Amino acid sequence: MRIIKKIFKNSRSPEDGIFFDKLEKILGFKPNNLEHYKKAFTHRSMNKVDEEGNTVNYERLEFLGDAMLGSVIAAHLFNKVPRGDEGYLTKMRSKIVSREHLNELGKDFNLIQFVESKVSPKHFGENVHGNIFEAFIGAIYLDKGFSYCEKFIHKKIIKPYVDIDRLEGKVISYKSLLIEWCQKEKKSFHYEVYDDNGTGNLKHFGVKLHIDGKVVAKARATSKKKAEEIASKRGYFVFQSQIDMK
Amino acid sequence: MRIIKKIFKNSRSPEDGIFFDKLEKILGFKPNNLEHYKKAFTHRSMNKVDEEGNTVNYERLEFLGDAMLGSVIAAHLFNKVPRGDEGYLTKMRSKIVSREHLNELGKDFNLIQFVESKVSPKHFGENVHGNIFEAFIGAIYLDKGFSYCEKFIHKKIIKPYVDIDRLEGKVISYKSLLIEWCQKEKKSFHYEVYDDNGTGNLKHFGVKLHIDGKVVAKARATSKKKAEEIASKRGYFVFQSQIDMK
Repeated sequence: MRIIKKIFKNSRSPEDGIFFDKLEKILGFKPNNLEHYKKAFTHRSMNKVDEEGNTVNYERLEFLGDAMLGSVIAAHLFNKVPRGDEGYLTKMRSKIVSREHLNELGKDFNLIQFVESKVSPKHFGENVHGNIFEAFIGAIYLDKGFSYCEKFIHKKIIKPYVDIDRLEGKVISYKSLLIEWCQKEKKSFHYEVYDDNGTGNLKHFGVKLHIDGKVVAKARATSKKKAEEIASKRGYFVFQSQIDMK
Repeated sequence: MRIIKKIFKNSRSPEDGIFFDKLEKILGFKPNNLEHYKKAFTHRSMNKVDEEGNTVNYERLEFLGDAMLGSVIAAHLFNKVPRGDEGYLTKMRSKIVSREHLNELGKDFNLIQFVESKVSPKHFGENVHGNIFEAFIGAIYLDKGFSYCEKFIHKKIIKPYVDIDRLEGKVISYKSLLIEWCQKEKKSFHYEVYDDNGTGNLKHFGVKLHIDGKVVAKARATSKKKAEEIASKRGYFVFQSQIDMK
């Protein structure tokens, strides 16, 4: 079995091998069929068609991914917030799958690095990030089925990004929450930018949160402010039991 | 194992036993947990709450079922119509899950028979049929998971009700198509109403289509016209290879 797998792996072109490895890192599992993902990153400007003459680009997959994302988020909210009525659930889902939020996710995964296009990514507009993110979800569904798609959305989107308290407006900023607690408890703290790379749309920041001289949380995001907020949220959960007792 | 099952079955109340049997007939499989389905048929006028004080009625399940239906229909259209772009897929899905269509489905399954309410079903309004139909889909998802929910939607909704040619407006009426073919081929035909029961909103018609003295198709629907059209469609597919050659 191992040998057969090796032969298959070797039969991949070097470009596909690199694509496979990068995908696996983002997905957290091995993709089966790279073609679905290639489609998810094909811009309409490539004017690709398949053997039957059907247009090949990421727009159809966007439709599919949007639907899968919608149903997984719906089920999550349904289970997570038993007190929320239909109106509440609808509103919360809209916030989670807002164009703005999807664009952020697409950027954070840096999916644009994979896009094949005849026009420069500069001309794509901001929404391309969210669009290819949706198409990517659609590709996962086609490649591995609903339950993988659901697992991916839970592990890579809901867990790190979906914070119901924040969406409800109960917690405006974890950073201020944490700073307040540190000051009250006389703990020293500071945020350290340890990574700052990429240019323009693809800029990325890595931030470490130190409390009493120890690194308690790290986060990466597309702005320093966002990375600090995410690190603060992670730090908050480290100390939650102590903070909530105050 | 058989004995254990029997004990469990016997531990059900007589009312639950009837409910279970009726549900099984509609679902095409055995439900696991009747509570989900009971919730799907609980009207807000019952003012039910659970142990935690959360409101219990079908409205939350509507939200969940709508999402599941949306994603299953999306995947079906995506696979079925490879030539359709994002705009086409979105439009077709809206037609399939239109309020009007969902109301028809709810009526055809006669789900309203299960509804628990303190107000008379007369005061529910037309949309109650579609709403409890969505809630029912939500209950299936909770009870049996996505793949059962998907199978149910394929078997009970897509296969008998979703006709892409008709939705595209290519075929206006299978009845006229079939009559035209019968006349051309000098075949005798007639539609026989063999079942006509229920009252008001719950009226049901059964129609048999006879061609050359043989019953070639049967259908049941909420109006005679609809039942004839569905029977004609089924008849059309029986003779499709002969009809298409003309």
